[in-house]
Amino acid sequence: MKITGSMSEKLYPIAPGCQRWAAVVSYNGANYCGFQRQKHSPSVQQALEQALSSIANQPVLTTCAGRTDTGVHATGQVVHWDSSAARTARNWLAGVNRMLPDDVGLSWAGEVDERFHARFSAQSRTYRYCILAATTRPAVLAEGVTWVRGQLDMVAMQAALPALLGEKDFSAVRGAGCQSHSPNRCVTSATLSKHGQLIVFEISANAFLLHMVRNIVGALLWVGSGKKPASWLATLLAGRDRTASAPTASGRGLYLVSVDYPAQLGLPELQRGPFWLPAELGD
Amino acid sequence: MKITGSMSEKLYPIAPGCQRWAAVVSYNGANYCGFQRQKHSPSVQQALEQALSSIANQPVLTTCAGRTDTGVHATGQVVHWDSSAARTARNWLAGVNRMLPDDVGLSWAGEVDERFHARFSAQSRTYRYCILAATTRPAVLAEGVTWVRGQLDMVAMQAALPALLGEKDFSAVRGAGCQSHSPNRCVTSATLSKHGQLIVFEISANAFLLHMVRNIVGALLWVGSGKKPASWLATLLAGRDRTASAPTASGRGLYLVSVDYPAQLGLPELQRGPFWLPAELGD
Repeated sequence: MKITGSMSEKLYPIAPGCQRWAAVVSYNGANYCGFQRQKHSPSVQQALEQALSSIANQPVLTTCAGRTDTGVHATGQVVHWDSSAARTARNWLAGVNRMLPDDVGLSWAGEVDERFHARFSAQSRTYRYCILAATTRPAVLAEGVTWVRGQLDMVAMQAALPALLGEKDFSAVRGAGCQSHSPNRCVTSATLSKHGQLIVFEISANAFLLHMVRNIVGALLWVGSGKKPASWLATLLAGRDRTASAPTASGRGLYLVSVDYPAQLGLPELQRGPFWLPAELGD
Repeated sequence: MKITGSMSEKLYPIAPGCQRWAAVVSYNGANYCGFQRQKHSPSVQQALEQALSSIANQPVLTTCAGRTDTGVHATGQVVHWDSSAARTARNWLAGVNRMLPDDVGLSWAGEVDERFHARFSAQSRTYRYCILAATTRPAVLAEGVTWVRGQLDMVAMQAALPALLGEKDFSAVRGAGCQSHSPNRCVTSATLSKHGQLIVFEISANAFLLHMVRNIVGALLWVGSGKKPASWLATLLAGRDRTASAPTASGRGLYLVSVDYPAQLGLPELQRGPFWLPAELGD
């Protein structure tokens, strides 16, 4: 499919003789070194490309919306690939899901045009972080939550959230190896809510720096445990000093739950996961 | 601790020189052949007794409230054991949790007296069953839910529930190898509710027959998928014919979430899990 974009729209040319496909991917990150292919560790990308290549009967390379870290999960990762194999959306969806291991799956697949690029066309990303504050460690879904021994002060944590909102320099919560040109990001929403015994942090931004969500959660855990007052998060961010921050929270509670694109690109609006949480969390 | 029970109370003598301990156990059943020890497969009981024996520095044997099947989970299994090892409740809890694999854990441990027997003192058990009705299979928590492709008619399923209530003959949903003397059980509560994208069935009874919950869920899935009308569940139970029933639903969506004892026996009232669900589900 070829559509002539308006002058303001950037195009990402499709390889000759190919169609471009997009898919929404879910995975339990526990057994992977992250999304991105690595030489010596199993990655989600490797599992996915192996399944796609098998269905295409030719090598398939994917591009993702957001590289997730080791152990991090996704219910709304988005990828695209170009392929000359004559397959329908249904072929890809059913075939790839049959080939993939149980801890990776597609929830949607469809054809897109050259205006679509999983990473560069994305307007915003949303992550959810599941925290279990309890006296004993979880045995069920242990790899899908971050366990904190004891209680957390949710009121204090909620009071800290407004400091995250808006366009600002997030150097204080930027991971050491981050290769982004700018430390500025625009956070459009940050909420904390209770679901069952879980405390769920949800954050949306145009994009995220390396380890940004996990470092923000680390800071919120210091506020929740009383180690720092709610006002400290604003101070921390204003100081732009990573060494003043809290330890990076574990990747196991983190889920990439949605990536938003301009509506005309045709990606579906899927419910944010993981499936035990409501589509809308509230505050 | 020795307490003289009233004439109406049954006693379960504690081994000489021992104390009796009880614990609440959580586990992800995915990697176990069920609670009960088996010769050639890893069981929760084996993992638990190994950890307890290591902390006691002597062999420990446990008795559980309800034997769960292969792949079935628990957030409120209850066990007891007698031991002459001088340990505090805190010693057991912290020590055993340190020794256990990640998919088994204690959420409480405490001393009980000879009126307490994990199985025989139990007055009722509650199970929850998590169903994900979706077009594509889950990748996160795949071993913790039963996936049904497509939609389920919750209204029809709810309309079938009253047929379960009360003391009656449950032969129609009794597993083939069930060794119980009587096919009668008293179901005190049965609800169906939505949590996120999950449909959760909760059922409480004085006790359950082999595969009873999974067979009831199998029948409810036939109602939910339109294969049978809501009124069929009552007909099925009245017919007492297992061959007329639906296939047994998978064990992977099933959780033993609580076991109730007379209050004077001292077991704590813990929130029903799994932790992503509310303590009270509603209808």
